[in-house]
Amino acid sequence: MRIVGVRRAQGGSGMEVATLAEQDDEITVIAPLADFWADPTRYLSRPPAGPTVPASSVERVPPVLPGARVFCIGLNYYAHAAEGSFRDQELPPYPTLFARWPQSLTVDGAEVPVPSNEEGLDWEGEVVAWVGAPLVDASPEEALASVVGYSAFNDLTSRRAQKLTSQWILGKNGDRSGPLGPLVPATEVGDLKQGLRLRTRVNGETMQDATTDQMIYAVGDTLSLISHTLTLRPGDLLATGTPAGVGYSRTPPQLLQPGDTVEVEVERLGTVRNTVVGNDRRSGPGGLRSHADQPEALTP
Amino acid sequence: MRIVGVRRAQGGSGMEVATLAEQDDEITVIAPLADFWADPTRYLSRPPAGPTVPASSVERVPPVLPGARVFCIGLNYYAHAAEGSFRDQELPPYPTLFARWPQSLTVDGAEVPVPSNEEGLDWEGEVVAWVGAPLVDASPEEALASVVGYSAFNDLTSRRAQKLTSQWILGKNGDRSGPLGPLVPATEVGDLKQGLRLRTRVNGETMQDATTDQMIYAVGDTLSLISHTLTLRPGDLLATGTPAGVGYSRTPPQLLQPGDTVEVEVERLGTVRNTVVGNDRRSGPGGLRSHADQPEALTP
Repeated sequence: MRIVGVRRAQGGSGMEVATLAEQDDEITVIAPLADFWADPTRYLSRPPAGPTVPASSVERVPPVLPGARVFCIGLNYYAHAAEGSFRDQELPPYPTLFARWPQSLTVDGAEVPVPSNEEGLDWEGEVVAWVGAPLVDASPEEALASVVGYSAFNDLTSRRAQKLTSQWILGKNGDRSGPLGPLVPATEVGDLKQGLRLRTRVNGETMQDATTDQMIYAVGDTLSLISHTLTLRPGDLLATGTPAGVGYSRTPPQLLQPGDTVEVEVERLGTVRNTVVGNDRRSGPGGLRSHADQPEALTP
Repeated sequence: MRIVGVRRAQGGSGMEVATLAEQDDEITVIAPLADFWADPTRYLSRPPAGPTVPASSVERVPPVLPGARVFCIGLNYYAHAAEGSFRDQELPPYPTLFARWPQSLTVDGAEVPVPSNEEGLDWEGEVVAWVGAPLVDASPEEALASVVGYSAFNDLTSRRAQKLTSQWILGKNGDRSGPLGPLVPATEVGDLKQGLRLRTRVNGETMQDATTDQMIYAVGDTLSLISHTLTLRPGDLLATGTPAGVGYSRTPPQLLQPGDTVEVEVERLGTVRNTVVGNDRRSGPGGLRSHADQPEALTP
């Protein structure tokens, strides 16, 4: 089962959560976005009760609450840590967490612009875990048990902005820079420790190829850590970090340019495919709209 | 004029923006939250058109869109940079930006919990600037002209979580850790370069005392920089950094404990006063609710 966010043209009913049919041709509405995240486990345990409509009749949006938090682990695969910021250092004992705002998220198929002051965008294929229950001072086991699903994710990065200072968040929140695949229920995925294969391709060429059992920091441990500082809520997200093979640490460095296609494929989670466009497309029409462009994303 | 967020008990009308009367005894509704941020300049240029009700009859909430982004400058006063993370380094040429999610924000009067694994909370008195127009690749002048208001702010920090790794955001997003004062229109405040006095007091003792003309990175320059990576939107916030005098760099170090009262007073912007409570009050009833506890904060 693949869970997506949709906006139907008719009815002005706002963002909804739906299942996507196997042939990608139809969606079946589950519930309004806020209703879904009020009790995701219940909604995922029964067939969707809403109407089925052609997929071409709806707009796809990330099924993300505007008030959700997107925690991202900076370095979570040994080989990527060795190629990146930590190559001369010992691994830190805790996951390095940075922030995305939901405004930066978008969907499979969206066009992602290169900011005017960047030489390109870098790819970072990842798996995202979705929190499904409130977590306060949770144990790693409780935290892992609360995860309701996983998605393929591309943490597209503005490297220049990321490296301007010691803190990374500017380069991690570019417009439409976080394409997110459908949510696949955790009951169908299992644990990431089993080693799901993750590959990132640029114009068809494989750039990253790893398995999720190579992660340093486990999902349950990381969510447990976070929950001791702040209360996690259903709909919050954890991007679990990218493996080796990103563009800026290659010899010579390589970054995504307008016209390039980038795909993140994760076993059991599917593929997120996006094209890169120029800065002139940042705010203009064309392509799929970002989460940020949804009027309701700005509504309380 | 002081602009606050409110939720009226009757009518289930959701979060609204209102003016707060001089005696704090009444509020006059301006508009629903999303309507206000769709055109803040227009709403601020005319008298509020909604009903006037007793302040005691409404719940105060931050007038912040759930999908807003809270950019925070890490070190923006020379003397604080000298006492903190940069004391042995040259000042970076760009502002060090970290992220808060709106879920961490709360209001004057709220009780702020100390997480279970912290030895206390640290204070960081600040001024927040509110973005009032979309900004794409804006000049510093355009960016500064877009600012519609300023607020006093306390960037209450979980130092242990902040310093666990190179990235600070975990310790900057504790529950109810960001109390935000009323928005005062920029037309009444003027430019921060004129030097507004900012003081932070703990149980009545002055801990920080500085003026905003001591800032290293100007509001217009910083918003301009951000707008070259991502599109700023009305309702986004910039916390402009704290001056010298925070607790952890004192000799001996001092942190806020349950029962302490902390106040941030900024000339022309007023005072934000909060009490600190134990971790047992993180999720329980009592005290003002946080932005995170507003059901609509989780609604698209």
